Amino acid sequence: MTTLDDLLAPKSFALVGASDDPTRIGGRPISNLINQKFEGAIYPVNPKRDRVQGLPAYPSLSDVPGDVDFVLVAVPAPLVADQVRLAATKGAKAVMVFSSGFAETGGDGIAMQDELTRIARETGVRVIGPNCLGAFNSALNFYPTFTSTIDRATPTPGGISIASQSGAYGSHIYFASHLRGLGIRYWLTTGNEADVNVAEAVRLLAERDDVHTIMAYAESIKDGPLLVEALETARANRTPVIFMKVGRSEVGAAAASSHTASLAGEDEVYDAVLRQHGAWRARSTEEMLDIAYACRPRIYPAGKRLGVVTISGGAGVLIADAAEDAGLDVAPMPEAAQAELKAQLPFAAPRNPVDVTAQFFNDLSLIPRFLRTMLDEGGYDALIGFWTSVAGSPVLSAPLLAYLKETMAGYSDRLLLHVMLAPEEVEKQYDEAGFPHFEDATRTVAAAAALMAFGEAFARGRAPVPPLPAPAVLPDGALGEREAKALLAAAGLPVVEDVLATTAEEAVAATTGPVAMKIASRDIAHKTEAGGVALGVTTDKAAEAFTRIMASARAYAPDARLDGVLVSPMVEGGVECILGARTDPVFGPVVVFGLGGIFTEVLKDVSFRRAPFGVETARGMIDELKGAALLKGARGQPPADLDALAEAISKLSLFAAANAENISSVEMNPLRALPTGCLALDALIVRA
Amino acid sequence: MTTLDDLLAPKSFALVGASDDPTRIGGRPISNLINQKFEGAIYPVNPKRDRVQGLPAYPSLSDVPGDVDFVLVAVPAPLVADQVRLAATKGAKAVMVFSSGFAETGGDGIAMQDELTRIARETGVRVIGPNCLGAFNSALNFYPTFTSTIDRATPTPGGISIASQSGAYGSHIYFASHLRGLGIRYWLTTGNEADVNVAEAVRLLAERDDVHTIMAYAESIKDGPLLVEALETARANRTPVIFMKVGRSEVGAAAASSHTASLAGEDEVYDAVLRQHGAWRARSTEEMLDIAYACRPRIYPAGKRLGVVTISGGAGVLIADAAEDAGLDVAPMPEAAQAELKAQLPFAAPRNPVDVTAQFFNDLSLIPRFLRTMLDEGGYDALIGFWTSVAGSPVLSAPLLAYLKETMAGYSDRLLLHVMLAPEEVEKQYDEAGFPHFEDATRTVAAAAALMAFGEAFARGRAPVPPLPAPAVLPDGALGEREAKALLAAAGLPVVEDVLATTAEEAVAATTGPVAMKIASRDIAHKTEAGGVALGVTTDKAAEAFTRIMASARAYAPDARLDGVLVSPMVEGGVECILGARTDPVFGPVVVFGLGGIFTEVLKDVSFRRAPFGVETARGMIDELKGAALLKGARGQPPADLDALAEAISKLSLFAAANAENISSVEMNPLRALPTGCLALDALIVRA
Repeated sequence: MTTLDDLLAPKSFALVGASDDPTRIGGRPISNLINQKFEGAIYPVNPKRDRVQGLPAYPSLSDVPGDVDFVLVAVPAPLVADQVRLAATKGAKAVMVFSSGFAETGGDGIAMQDELTRIARETGVRVIGPNCLGAFNSALNFYPTFTSTIDRATPTPGGISIASQSGAYGSHIYFASHLRGLGIRYWLTTGNEADVNVAEAVRLLAERDDVHTIMAYAESIKDGPLLVEALETARANRTPVIFMKVGRSEVGAAAASSHTASLAGEDEVYDAVLRQHGAWRARSTEEMLDIAYACRPRIYPAGKRLGVVTISGGAGVLIADAAEDAGLDVAPMPEAAQAELKAQLPFAAPRNPVDVTAQFFNDLSLIPRFLRTMLDEGGYDALIGFWTSVAGSPVLSAPLLAYLKETMAGYSDRLLLHVMLAPEEVEKQYDEAGFPHFEDATRTVAAAAALMAFGEAFARGRAPVPPLPAPAVLPDGALGEREAKALLAAAGLPVVEDVLATTAEEAVAATTGPVAMKIASRDIAHKTEAGGVALGVTTDKAAEAFTRIMASARAYAPDARLDGVLVSPMVEGGVECILGARTDPVFGPVVVFGLGGIFTEVLKDVSFRRAPFGVETARGMIDELKGAALLKGARGQPPADLDALAEAISKLSLFAAANAENISSVEMNPLRALPTGCLALDALIVRA
Repeated sequence: MTTLDDLLAPKSFALVGASDDPTRIGGRPISNLINQKFEGAIYPVNPKRDRVQGLPAYPSLSDVPGDVDFVLVAVPAPLVADQVRLAATKGAKAVMVFSSGFAETGGDGIAMQDELTRIARETGVRVIGPNCLGAFNSALNFYPTFTSTIDRATPTPGGISIASQSGAYGSHIYFASHLRGLGIRYWLTTGNEADVNVAEAVRLLAERDDVHTIMAYAESIKDGPLLVEALETARANRTPVIFMKVGRSEVGAAAASSHTASLAGEDEVYDAVLRQHGAWRARSTEEMLDIAYACRPRIYPAGKRLGVVTISGGAGVLIADAAEDAGLDVAPMPEAAQAELKAQLPFAAPRNPVDVTAQFFNDLSLIPRFLRTMLDEGGYDALIGFWTSVAGSPVLSAPLLAYLKETMAGYSDRLLLHVMLAPEEVEKQYDEAGFPHFEDATRTVAAAAALMAFGEAFARGRAPVPPLPAPAVLPDGALGEREAKALLAAAGLPVVEDVLATTAEEAVAATTGPVAMKIASRDIAHKTEAGGVALGVTTDKAAEAFTRIMASARAYAPDARLDGVLVSPMVEGGVECILGARTDPVFGPVVVFGLGGIFTEVLKDVSFRRAPFGVETARGMIDELKGAALLKGARGQPPADLDALAEAISKLSLFAAANAENISSVEMNPLRALPTGCLALDALIVRA
C-alpha cells in the first residue's frame, strides 16, 4: 500500500522536460531543489542540453543511471504516457505530471488521461496529476512544484498539511498560511486526478504522526468511499480535517464542473458525509486557516459549554450572540460560584459571560482569580478571554500574560482562546505559550466551535454500524407498490398491511373499516393520475370504488397489466414524513429523511446520511431538521415515536447498502410518524 | 437643534475632578489634550490643587473665567447632578459624564440618572453619559476620553466615524480600525444615555459632509423613531451606516440588559428596521471594518450583478458560492462576449466567473483586455478580481497594478475589489489607487454585497408612505371578533362578511351555503376552548349548531354577555396566512406577516416592518418569507393574488400607525390568500 513517503520522500528525482530557465515550468522545480538544498539526487532530462542549471542533464529518462524514485513530467500531453511507462521501468514510485491538455480539455484529452490511469493500475507506479501544480515536503526540502511562491515564501515545517485539488487555489492557501505564520509540512495538489486523488491524499496525510492538522480543498471527489476511509483514519488518529468543498452554489457547481471535468454530486450529501465522519466543512479560506491555527495546541474539548470572560460587557454580549449562532452553550456559572465572584468584585457580571469590568485596570489579579473560578466551578469545555488592546498595553501586557500562563499551567488540557489587539511580538509570546488568539471575537468563537466539534467527533469515534442483511431477491419485472412494500416489510421496515382484491367482492370483504384503495399494477407509476386511488372508502362504497378504479386504470393505460386493487386501512394522525434512499454518484447509497409536503418540496428541510448506519446516526438526522419540533409534540400534537422512527431510518440504510448493486432508489412516502410506531403508506423501489 | 459641533468642537474645555496623574480617569483626558495639542482652552477643576499637569487649576467650575463650551465630569455619582447644573450656568453646550454608579447599578442610580435627563431637558445642555468612556474629534485634536489607546494609536482623521453605546467595545472598534489603517474622524461613546443616545449620535454624524461612513454599535436603542430619522438622514446624504446591534441571542440579550439596564425589544424588528431604512447590519466587528474599508472609494453600485475574473478556476468556484450565499447574481457574460474572450484565449473560462488561467503569467495584457470586455459587455454592477500572491510578485506586481489603473481610469464609477496576498507597500499602492483589497475571497464578496445593498438603498431612497387615515373611533368596552372585523373593514381591510344571528331561526336564515358559526361575545377570547365554534355547517344543521354553541358558551362563561352567533360563509382554498400589527417597545407599531400554522409557530418564518409603509414595502415582506414559493404557486396550487395581499399588509400598517395610541395589537388570523383577493376569517384587536 502506498504511503506518503512513497510520494514525497524520494532519494532521487528526475524531471523530464527540464529547462535551464529557472522561471519556466520545467525549470522552477530544479531551481527550487537546488536553492532549498534537497539532499537527494537530481536528474534533469533534456535531449538538447548537456547541463541544466549547472547539473548534468540526460537525453532520456532511460539514460539516467540506476533507479529513480520520483519522476516529474513536463512535456506536451501526447508525449506523457510514454514517459510514465518509462518511469515505471526505472523503478519510480511516483510520477507527477504538470502537463495540461488532458480531461480538462475534453475530447482526446479524456482518452489520454484514461491511458495514464491504466498505466498506473498496470504498473503500480502512482501518478500525481496531470494538470497539477506540484507538491512539497518541507522537512526534506523537496519542492517538485512550479508555483512561484517557494522562493518568496519558503515553508517552515509545522504540523499542518494541505491537500488541494486545485493547484492555483492550493498555492493561495499555502501562501496565506505562510503569511499567517503557519508552518506547513506537506503540500500536495492533485490536479486532474488520473490516479492519486484528494481523498487519498487526505488518507496518506492522516496516517502520519508528523501531521497534526489537515486542510483540504476540492471541487469534486472522485472516490467517496475512499474519502470516508480517509476521514475515519484521521478521526482514529485525532487529526482534525478542515475541508473546503466548493461548488455549493449553482453557478459555483457549473464553474467547478467546467474546471475539473467531473461530476460533483449533491452538495447536501457532502455536507452530511463530512459531518458524519468527523471533518469540519469550512465555508471560507479564512475560516479554514483560523481553525488550523487554533488547532496548534492540539486541545479538542469534547463538549459545547463555552465560558467567556471579558473586560467589556459589550464584548460579552457579542460573543454570546456568536456562540448561539455556532450552536455553543454559554451556560451560566453555578449560583455559588457567581456569589463568589460577586464577593470579589461587586460590580462584576458573574453569570457568563463574566465581566471583570474596567476594575481590571486597578487589579489585574482579578483575571487569574476569575479564570480559576470559571475553570473549577463552571465546568466549561472551552474559554474565551477578551482582552482587546490591553493585551498589548506597554504597562499591562507582560503581567497579564504572566498571570494567564501561571493560571493555565494547572489546566493544561483546557482550551483558552484570546481576543486581543497587540503588536506582533506580543502575539508571538501568546503563540509560544500555546494560546491561540484572534483580533475578531466572532472568528474566535467560530474557531472554538470547530475545535469542540472535533473533540466531540474524536470522543464519539466511528459510529458502529449494525451488520448488513443479505441482499434481497428482487422479483422479475417492474416493481410496483405491492412488490416494494413486500421487499421492505421483509427487511423489517414498517409498511401498512394491505390485501390484494381482484374482484369487487374481495374488495368489499377486505374493507373492514375506512380504507385506502389503490390500483395494483407494476406498469402504472402515477396512480393518482391514472384515477387509481380512492381514500376513506367504507364498506358500502367498496364495490363501486373497486370498479371505478379498475375502469379508470384501464382507460388510462390500456396495455398495463392490472393485478387488482390494494386495500389497506386508512391511517390517520401523526406527522407525515418522507424516508428514502438513493445512490449518490460520489458516495453510493445515501438515506434522506424529511417532513412531508411543503417541508421537503418548498423548504428543502431534509437531512442526509451515507448508508449504512445505526440508530444513533438516524436520531441525528431527525434532530437536525428545522421542523423537528413537529415530531416532538409542537402545536399540541402528541410527540411521535422517535425510537421507532430512528429504527426505521437505520433499517432503510442497511437495506439500501445491502442492495446497492440492484436498487438505485427507495421511497417511503408518506411515512407516517405516529405516537406509537411509524408506518409507510406507500412505497416505491427503482432498480439499478 | 444640536449639531455635532456643539458636542465635539468646543473652544474651551473644563474637567471637574481633574487629576494630576495622567494615567487616572480624571487625568487622562487632560494629558490627551496636551499631548495631542488641542488648541482650545483647558480648565482643570480640582479644589485641592493649584496646578494640574502643569496647567492652572480651579477650585470649582464657577471659578473658571468666562463661559466653557464643554464640561467633563469625573466625580462620584451623587455629586454629578450639581456639576451638570453648574455647567449649564457656565454656558456649556455639552457635559460629558464619566462617572458610573447610575442606572447600571439599579436602585438609587436610576433616580440619579433620571435627574440628569431632567436637567438636560430643562437647561438645554446636552449630557453625554453617564458611565461613558468619552469621545474624540481627531481633526481638532479634541480627545475627552480616558481610553488608554490614544497615545498608542493616535487617530489619523478620515471619512469614517464611530458611534458606540459601549465604551470598552467602542475602544476596541476604534483600535481595530486604527490597526487596519482606517482614519477615524469622530468617535462618540454614549454609555448609559441619560440624554444623547446612539441613535442621535448617528444622526449628528449623518448630517456632516466630513463623515463618509458611519460605524455604529449598540446593545439597545432608546429611541426607535430617532434611529429611523438618523438612518434616513444618512440615506439622503448617501452615507453608509454599518450597524452592529448585539444581543441577538437569548444569552446575549440577557447580558445586554444587565449591562445597559434597558429593554432591547425584539431582534427581528431591529433586523427589519435597519434594512428598511437602508443600513447594513453587521454580524461581526471584522465585517463592519471590512465594509467601512471598502466604502472608501465611495462607489455604491445600485444592482446585484457581480462579475468575477480570476487567475484560478478554483477561486472562481469559491467566489461564486460566496456570492450566492450573499444573494448576488453571478450572471453569465453575453454569448458574443464569451466568444470574444474565447477568441483571445481558447483555454479561458469565459462565462463568469471568467478564468484567465495561468496564461496570464505569459501575457499580462489579458487582464485589461478581459476586464474591459466584462465592463463593456457584461453590465456588472461590481467586479472582483482574484490575483492571489501574483499581486505581490516582484516581477508582476508593478505591471499588473499599472494595467488595472489604466483600465479602470475609463470606468471611474465602477467598483472593482481585489483578492490578493501582497506586502504592505503593494497594498498601500492599491489603496492609493482607490482599489479596496482583501486577503480572503469570501470577505471580499461580503463587502461587495454590502456596498451593493447601500447602492440599492440610496437609489431607492426613502420609501413613500401613503397618508394615514383618521384614527378609528373604538366602541366602548371589550373588543370582540365582530367589533374587530367592523373596525378593520371600515379601514378597507378585507374581512369575511358575517351575520349576527340572535336566534336559531336567524341562524338558519343566514346559512345560505356551508358556513362557519362562532359565538359572538366580547367576553370570550378563546372561542374554540369555549365550544363556541362550528365549521362547515349546512342549513339542516344550522339550528342545532346555534343552540349547541350558545349552550356551550353559557356553560363555559356563565357571566359572559352573549350577543349571539356570527355566521359567515366557509372560505376554502388559498394559502393560510397570519397578518398582524403590534407595538414594539422601541420602534412603535410594527406589522408582522407570515404563512399560517407551522410556518409561524415552528419555523418562525415571519417578516416584520415598521409601520406605516406602502405597497412596495409590503411586497418585500412577502418576498422575504422562506415559504414565499407557496404563495407563488408551488405544489400545483394557483398563485395567490399578491397585489391584494400587499395592499392588505400596507393598509394594516396605516391602520396600526394611525391608531398607535389606542390599539396595542391587531391580529388577522387566518388571513386566507386566495387566487383573487384575500380574506381575514377572524380578527382580534387589543386596546392599548
